[in-house]
Amino acid sequence: MAANTYLTGIKPTGEFHLGNYVGAIKPALAAAREYDTYYFVADYHALNTVKDAAELRHSIRSGAATWLACGLDPERTVVYQQSKVPETFELTTILSALTPKGLMNRAHAYKAARDRNTAAGNSDLDAGINMGLYNYPILMAADILVMEGTHVPVGRDQSQHIEYTADIAGYFNHRFGEGYSFPVPKGVIDEGDGSILPGTDGRKMSKSYDNHIPLFLPENKLKKAIRRIPTDSTPVEDPKDADGSVPFQLLAHFADADKVADVRRRLEAGGMGWGELKNELFEAVNAELGPKRERYDQLMDDPSEIDAILEAGSARARERARATIDRVRAAVGVA
Amino acid sequence: MAANTYLTGIKPTGEFHLGNYVGAIKPALAAAREYDTYYFVADYHALNTVKDAAELRHSIRSGAATWLACGLDPERTVVYQQSKVPETFELTTILSALTPKGLMNRAHAYKAARDRNTAAGNSDLDAGINMGLYNYPILMAADILVMEGTHVPVGRDQSQHIEYTADIAGYFNHRFGEGYSFPVPKGVIDEGDGSILPGTDGRKMSKSYDNHIPLFLPENKLKKAIRRIPTDSTPVEDPKDADGSVPFQLLAHFADADKVADVRRRLEAGGMGWGELKNELFEAVNAELGPKRERYDQLMDDPSEIDAILEAGSARARERARATIDRVRAAVGVA
Repeated sequence: MAANTYLTGIKPTGEFHLGNYVGAIKPALAAAREYDTYYFVADYHALNTVKDAAELRHSIRSGAATWLACGLDPERTVVYQQSKVPETFELTTILSALTPKGLMNRAHAYKAARDRNTAAGNSDLDAGINMGLYNYPILMAADILVMEGTHVPVGRDQSQHIEYTADIAGYFNHRFGEGYSFPVPKGVIDEGDGSILPGTDGRKMSKSYDNHIPLFLPENKLKKAIRRIPTDSTPVEDPKDADGSVPFQLLAHFADADKVADVRRRLEAGGMGWGELKNELFEAVNAELGPKRERYDQLMDDPSEIDAILEAGSARARERARATIDRVRAAVGVA
Repeated sequence: MAANTYLTGIKPTGEFHLGNYVGAIKPALAAAREYDTYYFVADYHALNTVKDAAELRHSIRSGAATWLACGLDPERTVVYQQSKVPETFELTTILSALTPKGLMNRAHAYKAARDRNTAAGNSDLDAGINMGLYNYPILMAADILVMEGTHVPVGRDQSQHIEYTADIAGYFNHRFGEGYSFPVPKGVIDEGDGSILPGTDGRKMSKSYDNHIPLFLPENKLKKAIRRIPTDSTPVEDPKDADGSVPFQLLAHFADADKVADVRRRLEAGGMGWGELKNELFEAVNAELGPKRERYDQLMDDPSEIDAILEAGSARARERARATIDRVRAAVGVA
């Protein structure tokens, strides 16, 4: 084990939104300037929900293209495709033999699925739950441990993921530590406001609340989406509660500090209407995302560049995974 | 899909006994003369119970050496190590995403483990159950399907294994059959007497009943083990119930038909004692197993030959597995 290794998965399920950009992509890009970083498109995680080959293929490319367009440097960061590192799945098999079933029974995602069955009055609490969902914490542990990841960004409500990985690493180290020990990874909770970017209704921006603004909307659609953010009916000339309004909260994430201070002053003094605020917001968002959108469209128009980047990154990731699995195989006695 | 492919796993957990030889090894050797055969040492299945590297390493070699010593021809049969075909574990991950959790809940091995917890008065029915045991049916399905196995020998009480594999193949074919379809494998139940070779107490020979005779006992220990088989106190000169005695039932599997008929006549006529029957049994077993034991010892003394055979077989197996997984990857949309 050398330096810290910062590792994160990119979910390739549908388009990204501004909340993902501020809450996940930007902190990960910042980390990529500091750490040894491994970022992967989690295509077999996605297979749990996406059962259409064309859709999954598109989503893998779209996920990778989004991060690349946002500035991820594939020379500095190893960008790869989960399914192209088969050592991960071998490690999943090994870790399964060491993981108590009780641990999986207590996993949040599984329990939430059971709760939905309870709420729906379904007497079979496992109805509609597939083994991919149930095994998810083990696959996630393998994703991290096969790369000897040491730091994993997690949302405030996701600390169980990394606790489980630490537990599973512990089971292995306890049994086979004489032959090989995994570094036990830590969760990194981003302390910025990123994780609570508000959606159009003021709650956390999330596809499940349908309050999100897609990341790479064409300019005219972006303008419309911003115009449609609900605001109150305070007249233009009246003073306004800047921090209480969604457009201002969004602006704070996209405009520079001077602009944000200036707009705040004008809102609080009165004389600036919501329409003008929304124009400022559109300009700020469009200035930041316009060139990225252009790059994204270019990448998606001819996916051969994305494919080549994923191929090269996956080869680098496999080298590291191979070194880990070779030591693990020797430690458990199959080599 | 070309010809029929006969596939079976070799459990590398502890030494084999006469019941395994008659019930599993001999029928599999017979099949190897008829079919395209793939026989693998199931080392990651074994990891669910064996958590000691030296023991597992020994068991893998011992399992392979047993079958080779019994006459398995590694030129005709692809003899390989499960853990050396990582495509299997990738397929496990894919199949997990398609397998309902309810199916696993109903698996015999899992239910038996829960029943043991119930019997022990344990309120946590999942206590001591690891995810390797719980996921076992999916790994088994992947073992078979990645090789496009069409025929799998199963014991009379094990038909669920192959039914589950057929179910799981069906889930995949239903969802992704446009891109690729697995051949749906069939269970082959051996109709000979093999599966019911009696142990020394007359019940089915099994390590769990502690009524077994190890396959490669040294000659003097084999003789003692046979002498210790319980018989009744009928005097030498009295007529005896041949079919009702364990040594005769065993003899029927090891001596040729003429010898068996001759011994039956002498027992039923009276004048042949149990001691003499046991001598005949020892001679027959030793004649059949002596050369195999010698070959086994030779292979285990210098495991480099076993290792080379497993290495070469695993390379052949991987070629086939690679072809399958490439088609599967394209069908689900990750390639």
